[in-house]
Amino acid sequence: QTADSVAQAPATTKKWFESFAIRGYMQARYNRLLETNPDLSCEQCDRSWGNNGGFSLRRVRLILYGQLHERAYFYLQHDFASAPSGSTTVNFGQLRDAYLDLGLDKVNRFRLRIGQSKVPYGFENMQSSQNRLPLDRNDALNSALSNERDLGVMFYWAPTAVRQRFSRLVKDGLKGSGDYGVLGVGVFNGQTSNRPELNNERHVVARLSYPLVVGQQIIEPALQAYSGQYAVAKDQLSAGVKHRPDMNYLDQRVAATFVLYPQPFGVQAEYNAGRGPEFNPQTDSIETQPLHGGYVMLNYRLQYQQQQFYPFLRLQYYDGGKKHERDARSYTVREAELGVEWQPFSSFELVTMYTLSSRRFEDFQRPSNRQRGGLLRLQAQVNF
Amino acid sequence: QTADSVAQAPATTKKWFESFAIRGYMQARYNRLLETNPDLSCEQCDRSWGNNGGFSLRRVRLILYGQLHERAYFYLQHDFASAPSGSTTVNFGQLRDAYLDLGLDKVNRFRLRIGQSKVPYGFENMQSSQNRLPLDRNDALNSALSNERDLGVMFYWAPTAVRQRFSRLVKDGLKGSGDYGVLGVGVFNGQTSNRPELNNERHVVARLSYPLVVGQQIIEPALQAYSGQYAVAKDQLSAGVKHRPDMNYLDQRVAATFVLYPQPFGVQAEYNAGRGPEFNPQTDSIETQPLHGGYVMLNYRLQYQQQQFYPFLRLQYYDGGKKHERDARSYTVREAELGVEWQPFSSFELVTMYTLSSRRFEDFQRPSNRQRGGLLRLQAQVNF
Amino acid sequence: QTADSVAQAPATTKKWFESFAIRGYMQARYNRLLETNPDLSCEQCDRSWGNNGGFSLRRVRLILYGQLHERAYFYLQHDFASAPSGSTTVNFGQLRDAYLDLGLDKVNRFRLRIGQSKVPYGFENMQSSQNRLPLDRNDALNSALSNERDLGVMFYWAPTAVRQRFSRLVKDGLKGSGDYGVLGVGVFNGQTSNRPELNNERHVVARLSYPLVVGQQIIEPALQAYSGQYAVAKDQLSAGVKHRPDMNYLDQRVAATFVLYPQPFGVQAEYNAGRGPEFNPQTDSIETQPLHGGYVMLNYRLQYQQQQFYPFLRLQYYDGGKKHERDARSYTVREAELGVEWQPFSSFELVTMYTLSSRRFEDFQRPSNRQRGGLLRLQAQVNF
Repeated sequence: QTADSVAQAPATTKKWFESFAIRGYMQARYNRLLETNPDLSCEQCDRSWGNNGGFSLRRVRLILYGQLHERAYFYLQHDFASAPSGSTTVNFGQLRDAYLDLGLDKVNRFRLRIGQSKVPYGFENMQSSQNRLPLDRNDALNSALSNERDLGVMFYWAPTAVRQRFSRLVKDGLKGSGDYGVLGVGVFNGQTSNRPELNNERHVVARLSYPLVVGQQIIEPALQAYSGQYAVAKDQLSAGVKHRPDMNYLDQRVAATFVLYPQPFGVQAEYNAGRGPEFNPQTDSIETQPLHGGYVMLNYRLQYQQQQFYPFLRLQYYDGGKKHERDARSYTVREAELGVEWQPFSSFELVTMYTLSSRRFEDFQRPSNRQRGGLLRLQAQVNF
Repeated sequence: QTADSVAQAPATTKKWFESFAIRGYMQARYNRLLETNPDLSCEQCDRSWGNNGGFSLRRVRLILYGQLHERAYFYLQHDFASAPSGSTTVNFGQLRDAYLDLGLDKVNRFRLRIGQSKVPYGFENMQSSQNRLPLDRNDALNSALSNERDLGVMFYWAPTAVRQRFSRLVKDGLKGSGDYGVLGVGVFNGQTSNRPELNNERHVVARLSYPLVVGQQIIEPALQAYSGQYAVAKDQLSAGVKHRPDMNYLDQRVAATFVLYPQPFGVQAEYNAGRGPEFNPQTDSIETQPLHGGYVMLNYRLQYQQQQFYPFLRLQYYDGGKKHERDARSYTVREAELGVEWQPFSSFELVTMYTLSSRRFEDFQRPSNRQRGGLLRLQAQVNF
Repeated sequence: QTADSVAQAPATTKKWFESFAIRGYMQARYNRLLETNPDLSCEQCDRSWGNNGGFSLRRVRLILYGQLHERAYFYLQHDFASAPSGSTTVNFGQLRDAYLDLGLDKVNRFRLRIGQSKVPYGFENMQSSQNRLPLDRNDALNSALSNERDLGVMFYWAPTAVRQRFSRLVKDGLKGSGDYGVLGVGVFNGQTSNRPELNNERHVVARLSYPLVVGQQIIEPALQAYSGQYAVAKDQLSAGVKHRPDMNYLDQRVAATFVLYPQPFGVQAEYNAGRGPEFNPQTDSIETQPLHGGYVMLNYRLQYQQQQFYPFLRLQYYDGGKKHERDARSYTVREAELGVEWQPFSSFELVTMYTLSSRRFEDFQRPSNRQRGGLLRLQAQVNF
């Protein structure tokens, strides 16, 4: 803090607004049209699904980022559609990303990423919600990491040509993931984003991903895995549920990814399997259990003058727990989604999507709970 | 999220700082001078009134806004003087506005406003606190909407000439409301800003307002009304208070507005009547009850060199409930305020105001509570 | 709020990004290397010390500031590594500074500072965490003010030449405190930053500080004192702890400071004594008790090409209470820290520090608690 009003000459000749940039986006939603079952809901997807839901803000993001030095890049993202645990009022500002990329070489092929950032596990997890076609991420891989992020240190490597390709896949409207390296390895707390560490074990993660040019097309296969001990937090336990005395559970997964970028026809498929905490309604206890599931998405890119249309179909399946929800809630999910994203111009997008879903989600308070139904979902997005 | 440090060429030739702007304002207050009754207070007005109050920040606002495309305008406002429910620490960042204006025609006479924004009900509610003369809004119309806002979709229409007039009324220091259309109609959740929807009914609102040039003067009469079901939230109930089983209460109001803009003498008057939830101390229960009240304000604009002075006198009355307070607290308010706003230069304003007040505010915990008294109130405001 | 999309001509010819500036910094930490005692911790210093700690963000700061008019300067700082009381999720945005400097003369030798800002008590308290060498402030003087700030009105005076010297001491990498005047006097709530006032007494503070040029060296001796009534808050009391009926405790301190700026060898020493609330394990009660303590730090500035190195050694002692912690927790602290700050370039800093500590910290729940140990601490900081 330089708490004074005497004019300060800047250290460099760059003005402040040239040394970094600000951008953001907002998503407003309505999920209640053509709804057949108000008890069908999905906590991690969107809290405004189902009974007593209404208009909602799903994301209100503000991002500061910049290349401060040939070896230093920073990225700071807030969300203003978050709420502290226990608060009945919402829309408080909370961190998403806060990291520094330190280049180990001058052109940043080798980078150390320090701070809170996305854990390199899953293509759809890496891809920004600003670019994703379906309104919510798939349950199978997203259940690995609440808000996709954690605190730690990551190492990324990618050749310069591949870094430029990663960048172009976003810029050209091909819905890329951004640059999380060809190789990514890291160590992180393991309690997921914005939650303090609760044990003395760190998680480790590794990912290998390569965007290949095959004729006119680009495909990107990837493999990734993580492992650690997850500590179930006291405030997510129902009174009476049984659990391990130290509340620590094995938490490990491996996933495979295949992406064919939409030029104009695209395919995106991911699958993961592993073990983690899951509520067992038979024993009223949280136990380490196997989990598995994935999705396949077909999409198409249609350009009409300045406008973009992206029709898509996604089928997904998940059987396992969600470690960060009440009692490590137990899930079986079968879901089909058919929708279209329309961009009349670059600062506005409208997604219309029909969801047909069968979801079993059970915890100590609702030990037998399977819901089926359909609903139409709408989202308006502004990019600035 | 484009999580990479490879330089990205901007999609347009506009720099980020040319495509939108940032501005804000802050208000610091002190309310304890010449205070005659420390038990006189007003929760919705200003929590630092009365006993154990001290210096306070009433508003710390940060706004991002811009015309992103000929048909797309966005507005994003945070307040950093807010607190989550249940927290004893304060000054957290919370959303106020987050909306997109979609122009249905190229010059935006017809606009759809999507997201969280002010509900078009009442001139003083629409007018920014940055411009208002009295420190707090009147109880009669402000009790309709905590923080004046809600989540939904609004439609606004105004001819271009009127839009420019709305704009000029703010810019020229005449304390206008901004452009909420000649006609505004909308649908919104109904639980007021930053509170999730709690029932399956949406509120509807309509407003008609027209700024007329009459000789050298501009007057703006308006009519507005809204209707819906308000769900009293569990966390605002005292243990023991009686209420409807489903906690839903009819919530509807109609209001009339008259404004004569201060060139140099101004008049502002509003009145509303309706029905809503209100605590009844006779029955210890929350009941749907009639409500009514309004205010009249006289003001004057005095320019001396670069300085502006706005002396004002406001008289207000309200009899009814405040749906968003504890047990839908019951009020009878009679208040007179005499003050002056002084702007020595455009980035600084000082308001000095004497308040003489009689307030009955009763809930299950304080079923008989009428307070009278006077106090001097001070506010320093910086605009950036 | 000027809620419209009709283009507004700016009041001045300055663009928004020329009228104020945005900057910030982030600190990521890891404290678990070479740790000998996991029960050694320090709540006010860094919550990620010790058992179950992991990677953490200590500060994520965003600052807007600018000279808006020859007599008006504003400073608005948020931290995105804060959490509301009672929340188990973290990293919410919370205010640090929100103030306006009003120049009483045209060159701002005499200034009124209105709003939330640092209370002028202690050099290390005034110095920004962005510039400080040891990772945390010393217990002795920092225990006076949680987050160093409070809400109120301060008066500062300094001659123009001294204001420029204060500014240069920061800009030239000499780790100055910024400009809190040669003379500072003020009145403030007394409950420390982001906590509402809880009694009807304000605190008062005064400080005298002068940066003297002595040959090639600059020294800065200072004296400061404050006095007031601190109200222990209900939510910081353990069930069963005894306390004064009105919960108000005398809170007063006086401190002396000596700084020799590192050209290249530097010395920094501060000491304070006073009285305040402190838990007494013998009587299970919170009592007004004497407190005293201070520190001495030796440092050295080494420049190698563009790089800066600042090795430092700090020894500190504190015996007294921490009024803003549980039951006004009782402390005896003896600590030695040896470390180095490395700045390879201006936007990045790495601090490596070894801490050897003996800390007694006792409250009603842990009435006998003395911990000794050592640990290695790491911090990466990015400045933007």
